[in-house]
Amino acid sequence: MTGAQLKDLLQAYKNGQVDLDTVMGHLKSLKEEDLGFAKVDHHRALRNGFPEVIFGQGKTKEQVAAIASRLAAAGSTVLVTRTTREVYQEVAARLPAAEFNELARTIVVAAGEIKPTGGRVAVLSAGTADLPVAEEAAVTAAVMGNEVERIYDVGVAGIHRLLGRVELVRRADVVIVVAGMEGALASVVAGLVDRPVIAVPTSIGYGASFGGLAALLTMLNSCAAGIGVVNIDNGFGAAALATAITRLKKV
Amino acid sequence: MTGAQLKDLLQAYKNGQVDLDTVMGHLKSLKEEDLGFAKVDHHRALRNGFPEVIFGQGKTKEQVAAIASRLAAAGSTVLVTRTTREVYQEVAARLPAAEFNELARTIVVAAGEIKPTGGRVAVLSAGTADLPVAEEAAVTAAVMGNEVERIYDVGVAGIHRLLGRVELVRRADVVIVVAGMEGALASVVAGLVDRPVIAVPTSIGYGASFGGLAALLTMLNSCAAGIGVVNIDNGFGAAALATAITRLKKV
Amino acid sequence: MTGAQLKDLLQAYKNGQVDLDTVMGHLKSLKEEDLGFAKVDHHRALRNGFPEVIFGQGKTKEQVAAIASRLAAAGSTVLVTRTTREVYQEVAARLPAAEFNELARTIVVAAGEIKPTGGRVAVLSAGTADLPVAEEAAVTAAVMGNEVERIYDVGVAGIHRLLGRVELVRRADVVIVVAGMEGALASVVAGLVDRPVIAVPTSIGYGASFGGLAALLTMLNSCAAGIGVVNIDNGFGAAALATAITRLKKV
Amino acid sequence: MTGAQLKDLLQAYKNGQVDLDTVMGHLKSLKEEDLGFAKVDHHRALRNGFPEVIFGQGKTKEQVAAIASRLAAAGSTVLVTRTTREVYQEVAARLPAAEFNELARTIVVAAGEIKPTGGRVAVLSAGTADLPVAEEAAVTAAVMGNEVERIYDVGVAGIHRLLGRVELVRRADVVIVVAGMEGALASVVAGLVDRPVIAVPTSIGYGASFGGLAALLTMLNSCAAGIGVVNIDNGFGAAALATAITRLKKV
Amino acid sequence: MTGAQLKDLLQAYKNGQVDLDTVMGHLKSLKEEDLGFAKVDHHRALRNGFPEVIFGQGKTKEQVAAIASRLAAAGSTVLVTRTTREVYQEVAARLPAAEFNELARTIVVAAGEIKPTGGRVAVLSAGTADLPVAEEAAVTAAVMGNEVERIYDVGVAGIHRLLGRVELVRRADVVIVVAGMEGALASVVAGLVDRPVIAVPTSIGYGASFGGLAALLTMLNSCAAGIGVVNIDNGFGAAALATAITRLKKV
Amino acid sequence: MTGAQLKDLLQAYKNGQVDLDTVMGHLKSLKEEDLGFAKVDHHRALRNGFPEVIFGQGKTKEQVAAIASRLAAAGSTVLVTRTTREVYQEVAARLPAAEFNELARTIVVAAGEIKPTGGRVAVLSAGTADLPVAEEAAVTAAVMGNEVERIYDVGVAGIHRLLGRVELVRRADVVIVVAGMEGALASVVAGLVDRPVIAVPTSIGYGASFGGLAALLTMLNSCAAGIGVVNIDNGFGAAALATAITRLKKV
Amino acid sequence: MTGAQLKDLLQAYKNGQVDLDTVMGHLKSLKEEDLGFAKVDHHRALRNGFPEVIFGQGKTKEQVAAIASRLAAAGSTVLVTRTTREVYQEVAARLPAAEFNELARTIVVAAGEIKPTGGRVAVLSAGTADLPVAEEAAVTAAVMGNEVERIYDVGVAGIHRLLGRVELVRRADVVIVVAGMEGALASVVAGLVDRPVIAVPTSIGYGASFGGLAALLTMLNSCAAGIGVVNIDNGFGAAALATAITRLKKV
Amino acid sequence: MTGAQLKDLLQAYKNGQVDLDTVMGHLKSLKEEDLGFAKVDHHRALRNGFPEVIFGQGKTKEQVAAIASRLAAAGSTVLVTRTTREVYQEVAARLPAAEFNELARTIVVAAGEIKPTGGRVAVLSAGTADLPVAEEAAVTAAVMGNEVERIYDVGVAGIHRLLGRVELVRRADVVIVVAGMEGALASVVAGLVDRPVIAVPTSIGYGASFGGLAALLTMLNSCAAGIGVVNIDNGFGAAALATAITRLKKV
Repeated sequence: MTGAQLKDLLQAYKNGQVDLDTVMGHLKSLKEEDLGFAKVDHHRALRNGFPEVIFGQGKTKEQVAAIASRLAAAGSTVLVTRTTREVYQEVAARLPAAEFNELARTIVVAAGEIKPTGGRVAVLSAGTADLPVAEEAAVTAAVMGNEVERIYDVGVAGIHRLLGRVELVRRADVVIVVAGMEGALASVVAGLVDRPVIAVPTSIGYGASFGGLAALLTMLNSCAAGIGVVNIDNGFGAAALATAITRLKKV
Repeated sequence: MTGAQLKDLLQAYKNGQVDLDTVMGHLKSLKEEDLGFAKVDHHRALRNGFPEVIFGQGKTKEQVAAIASRLAAAGSTVLVTRTTREVYQEVAARLPAAEFNELARTIVVAAGEIKPTGGRVAVLSAGTADLPVAEEAAVTAAVMGNEVERIYDVGVAGIHRLLGRVELVRRADVVIVVAGMEGALASVVAGLVDRPVIAVPTSIGYGASFGGLAALLTMLNSCAAGIGVVNIDNGFGAAALATAITRLKKV
Repeated sequence: MTGAQLKDLLQAYKNGQVDLDTVMGHLKSLKEEDLGFAKVDHHRALRNGFPEVIFGQGKTKEQVAAIASRLAAAGSTVLVTRTTREVYQEVAARLPAAEFNELARTIVVAAGEIKPTGGRVAVLSAGTADLPVAEEAAVTAAVMGNEVERIYDVGVAGIHRLLGRVELVRRADVVIVVAGMEGALASVVAGLVDRPVIAVPTSIGYGASFGGLAALLTMLNSCAAGIGVVNIDNGFGAAALATAITRLKKV
Repeated sequence: MTGAQLKDLLQAYKNGQVDLDTVMGHLKSLKEEDLGFAKVDHHRALRNGFPEVIFGQGKTKEQVAAIASRLAAAGSTVLVTRTTREVYQEVAARLPAAEFNELARTIVVAAGEIKPTGGRVAVLSAGTADLPVAEEAAVTAAVMGNEVERIYDVGVAGIHRLLGRVELVRRADVVIVVAGMEGALASVVAGLVDRPVIAVPTSIGYGASFGGLAALLTMLNSCAAGIGVVNIDNGFGAAALATAITRLKKV
Repeated sequence: MTGAQLKDLLQAYKNGQVDLDTVMGHLKSLKEEDLGFAKVDHHRALRNGFPEVIFGQGKTKEQVAAIASRLAAAGSTVLVTRTTREVYQEVAARLPAAEFNELARTIVVAAGEIKPTGGRVAVLSAGTADLPVAEEAAVTAAVMGNEVERIYDVGVAGIHRLLGRVELVRRADVVIVVAGMEGALASVVAGLVDRPVIAVPTSIGYGASFGGLAALLTMLNSCAAGIGVVNIDNGFGAAALATAITRLKKV
Repeated sequence: MTGAQLKDLLQAYKNGQVDLDTVMGHLKSLKEEDLGFAKVDHHRALRNGFPEVIFGQGKTKEQVAAIASRLAAAGSTVLVTRTTREVYQEVAARLPAAEFNELARTIVVAAGEIKPTGGRVAVLSAGTADLPVAEEAAVTAAVMGNEVERIYDVGVAGIHRLLGRVELVRRADVVIVVAGMEGALASVVAGLVDRPVIAVPTSIGYGASFGGLAALLTMLNSCAAGIGVVNIDNGFGAAALATAITRLKKV
Repeated sequence: MTGAQLKDLLQAYKNGQVDLDTVMGHLKSLKEEDLGFAKVDHHRALRNGFPEVIFGQGKTKEQVAAIASRLAAAGSTVLVTRTTREVYQEVAARLPAAEFNELARTIVVAAGEIKPTGGRVAVLSAGTADLPVAEEAAVTAAVMGNEVERIYDVGVAGIHRLLGRVELVRRADVVIVVAGMEGALASVVAGLVDRPVIAVPTSIGYGASFGGLAALLTMLNSCAAGIGVVNIDNGFGAAALATAITRLKKV
Repeated sequence: MTGAQLKDLLQAYKNGQVDLDTVMGHLKSLKEEDLGFAKVDHHRALRNGFPEVIFGQGKTKEQVAAIASRLAAAGSTVLVTRTTREVYQEVAARLPAAEFNELARTIVVAAGEIKPTGGRVAVLSAGTADLPVAEEAAVTAAVMGNEVERIYDVGVAGIHRLLGRVELVRRADVVIVVAGMEGALASVVAGLVDRPVIAVPTSIGYGASFGGLAALLTMLNSCAAGIGVVNIDNGFGAAALATAITRLKKV
């Protein structure tokens, strides 16, 4: 039942064409989505400053290109994560504005200017092998309107590299820390800054890293307060959370 | 070497009492903490809008009371977590202003007015058994200067209870979701709001909950973006992260 | 000893050719399967409204085709699960009635009309990546005689999609919920319906999903009652259980 | 806004006291729970042939007695699980009709006749140590209106005990199998009957049983179809699922 | 149907009171246990050179004493495992012949001479903390009729102690190796003897021993052939397996 | 120092060429292996009724062929496990007597008659997917001199198939049970026979089988006594243990 | 056969009382321990600069006192770990020289001067809750002859505290790092010094620390080279390893 | 600010061109790395007797060759680990001095003589499959200046092979033990020598070895003191730790 139909019903009721019980009955039989959930949808629409995101893993290049085309046609900025150059070529054939970031494994098809959040996000990574996840976070944070500062290769085994750039870290509103192996960087960073720290364990490592489990547990058990952890290798999720945070600056 | 000593040295150098090499030598032999880490300390001092926190678990009542007295004497607001009524009585004997929250298992000794962050934190819990952790988060968030909204007993098995209060959730700047057993509440909430969601798994449950592991994994694997996870039962940590976020509103 | 031999023995006994003790001795030395387990077999035969099922994984296309041919020749409906188009082509060369469902990865060779159970099975899935398992369940449920309603892409991160279709879910006798990542959908559904819910965790996800373990634990720990869980990715098993349930309607 | 208030509004509209836009505005501003979720609640009410259940673990005897009294006063049958004789005495002081089952660790306060489902539930247990969980299932199934057949001590290490009672098992509509240690009973049973089997792993065992994990994995990996698994030691959940199934006989 | 009833039936058939089909029908409707499983029972009876065993853990002293009295009255040797002195006193009050082994935590009530298997079982333990499990194995093996050689405190960190007694080990028919912590003793022993080795991991250890898991995995992964592993702390099971082996000497 | 050198020394001592202290000094400085461990080696030599075994996994076909040729040249029977047809062809080119078992993935190069142990080993498998491991056990047991009875496809979901062949199982001296998925077969078998049962979990299964872990735990937690467990997929190890047992019949 | 007996034999041989073959036979039948393992023992004796150590956990106070008395009577320095004041009182009643360290949970009964290794061992701990393990390491290292520097409460969340004492750390020959929760301290330390680092995870923490597993994995996965890890809470083992290292300075 | 700039500043201050406050301000605003961390770097430089190490896994041959060329050009000895012949060919094309060790999977490009540590490192391995890790350790230890003794194939299942070479082991300053499967070798070795033992679990094995977890746990739980454990397959790390130890001989 649409709003128009509802109006008609009420009019008919006023005109005496239907009685009160009939109206009440109709109102009670409204399907749940007719009223309440339209409101839910409306709220979700408010979120759509976010670009539309396609999780590329497990999809064929044709699938990605088709979805991306449809979303771009609807006027959305499109972000494809966990993708490859081969997929990019398929997408670019249809959407020449598409840009590929090999390290981040992302494709971005921008739709107009990105609306800035006014927030600054620092992305730190421990080792060079963590870069793909760090870049996924950095690209996502940028396409969501944040100013991004990349501070890479500052793992705790060479603590002076981090300390030498601590001022840069402190200038950020939110700090994303990407680290595999033992994942200790998040704790050290959270002890040095008073900003929210988003920790991203990576699956980098071997043996007793158990696919990122070691880094994940390290980050969850941090003795430093102010750390939120996302799933292993989830650079995108870290950036989405960071953006939810930086948007608060304008609230 | 203090700043005063450094000044004396420079003065002596200008006066010709010591030569350039001597000054350079002194500067080079400065212990690391003399300069650089004083700055680190300074930054940490900035954080101290935070109350001083005593992790009560594993400490005797005498230990807690002694530490609390010392911190309170230094003018700090003191928060004791994971504590008991028995400890409270010991603390209150020395610090009559101490307040005990039995459910949250916290003691707060306030030092003057709490400086508001201007942020609103909603604390949601799934079941009644999750309340101690939820209250630890709520008390901590309040004592750190946030306005706190408690929205309890909104577990996903009765989804209408959550949906009926969704506007209340949306009014918050940050949402803390506390849930044990299957921990599914965080995903549902993150799908309904566009604010940062901090998920706290609890050790509530039995059998295959494995002490909170099930809820922890659920939260880390959420298909909804914008969730950061803290350690099992870490209500305090969730509130500390929430406060690091709400403080950004004034940055 | 066959039934015929048994008859001969009894006849000989009546004729006085063998005495009572000899008959008793023969009866006592009957091998277990002679009598008791024939009955077991008979009962199993009663079950055979079920189609014959070939678990395709790890079998060559020749093996599958050979087994399928033999079963079809015996008059059974044949269901092949976890199979591929390549295997299908081999089967279809021998059994032209074979039908392939690429998404479900199933082949069905129907033998006459499927006898309806009179039951309605709803198959819900959380995300598009869960579809192969959901379709395996749906195809299996259909070939076992159930009316199947597919309700896909209703994951909890967009709860309004599920809520908007809740009446459809409630019309089912049994609800199969297929979900990977955090697997929270089963709890929400079980809170909305009073029908048996069969939860199928999938191995969809990455990092801390640990091959479906996270979803599995979520489902086992559900705070909603009325949920039975099957193995990770076991769409077939869910449908078999659903059919064992819907058959009760005629008991 | 209650139904009465809604009626008043519509009346006022008909009388010309409020115009159409005002009515539409009111309808649109209905809080989600006013309409849609009342319907959700209504559906849940339909479920309430179920007794009200109090999970006794972790609650004081005073808490249990208070909740039980309130529910009983509202006319509900009350079931307390995971409770003790001490709690029972507190409850019985207020509700003399309360009945205690020491083995099942349950209290039942019946409210009138239990409405039969017409279903038969067999509860099988492997060993004597599994009895508390089996009895929790049996008591719950009975109080929910099922006819219950207890078939205990039929573990697979003495397979003849099970086989000797297989006809009894087959007479049930649903079979609940309770087993700790290696949990193999569920597979054997599911191979012997064509009814839905609900498997309940128990935490009985030591060493490599890992608190019931071994039995849980066994049941999930059963090579027999038609098994749904619930959480370790969750006798209540098994019975609730069984009841959701037996109710279908009247649908 | 008992044997007597069966005889009556056959007599009636011979007398012409019932016809052949009726007899065949009766025979086919024999419940499974009537015939086949009596035979199963008979075979199990053959096993009963084994003493009757009561697993004492989780049983009250009254329960143990009652079961022990009943079994002893039936003429069986009784072995109680995982018991305490307190239980022993209760048992001894009824069965003065009961003997308690504090270290092994066993009670034995012998019924006549134990029939020797003719086998020799060596029980080795790595450390003193493993002794309770080793003694449980030794007492069980002895009461089951084996000659038992205890060779204790021969852990691999002092390999000369084992090597100095290697001839003694080699004189055994079966070697039981009991070891906690890293559990390496089983591999070394299996490399030194050509007899079957039964490895019993114990829960002795701390930290990364994870309740015996480390020792269990060590034993399962042994690079030496000829090792069978039983559950953590399962000294009884090791001895039962050893006895099943030594009995073969007389086959 | 060899035996010859030792003799020379003693001769020289007798001849007065060296004095007693010199001899004693030489004896004390004997390297450990000179004396004691020669004896160890001697004992190991006694074991060599066993064929020489090459673990084929991870070795090139050239490596396997080279080792096999050397061992065969020394007169040993050679058994290659976990190998392929391709390796076989390489081996057969050098050793025409080599025989390949595709299902068992073994090559056997027999050296004369195999000396019988006089023991009978039954190898049971639950499902067809377990056959490679079962065959590895069967081939190994045969080449080590045992009479082998294969009893395949007797999984517990169709318990009558096992029961119908229980007499055959009981005729064995040792029973090897090979089962993946839930691994319940070992418990049922151990309840039916009074022979030692060697349980081999296999990695067959998916999802929550976790590479054979589920079956392994099931077997370790068996409520039936008399079971020893070997590593996942370790058919060879089971047969080696079985042979260590059957050899006792001649001790 | 003792050395004296051996001499007698050789004398008799020289005298012609026994012939060469007899001597050779005797030598070959020497039990393994007669010769070779005496040497092993001798080497172990060399190790005995180590004090005798009693692992106190799980032993009664009488047992500890008895063992300690016996060892002290033999002239050894005695170290009891994981003990209590109550045990100490029992020991001190017999050995007045006993000294108790409550924090370390150790008793030391010194026998003369401790022979210094000449090595310096720094013991670092992350948090105050780690102190018992750190002290166990420090006391053990001291009683084994090392100069010990305690550097406590230098966890990575306040990195300046560690950095401010880095010179002190660098003066050590070996660095023991004791840390629970996330255990990140070891990596940071190993990046700052070029000495061997021994990492001791502790069971301090809660939730996802899983009894020290998180810290253990962190330390094993360290991206810094030069770290050896011991078992969770194994302060004694760390000090024993450190001493094995510092002794090399005199080699 | 460099040292030269600092000197200029001080000169200018003495000349009166800048005043004291300005100098103090400059000093206070020194970035952390300017002074303190130069010192950190200096210390790290001291470490650089170590060769430069490239972790080859996951890098392309072009990447490895490029990095190796740059490091070699700077005068460093270069060690590439976890590499292949194909990469070696690329490196050798640019650096003809490169040497490849196929078993160790290493490339070494030596720069002048390696400065000896004066230390002797024994590398023991249990089985032939452990050789790649053992060789990685041996090559690394050699290129870091240690004298290396390889003692391979001395697994505990044939303990005499180890015992026969125990003197050789004892001549080492540090013993590296490399073992997969059950990993028991480390405990036996640590019981035989009084030198530091570095244990390297390998991922060799199958089934319940769980990728090296079994060996790792074995080594951590060793009942012998003096063992430090590194990550699974981390031969390089073991050698780096060994070198940190042997360098102490010259301290």
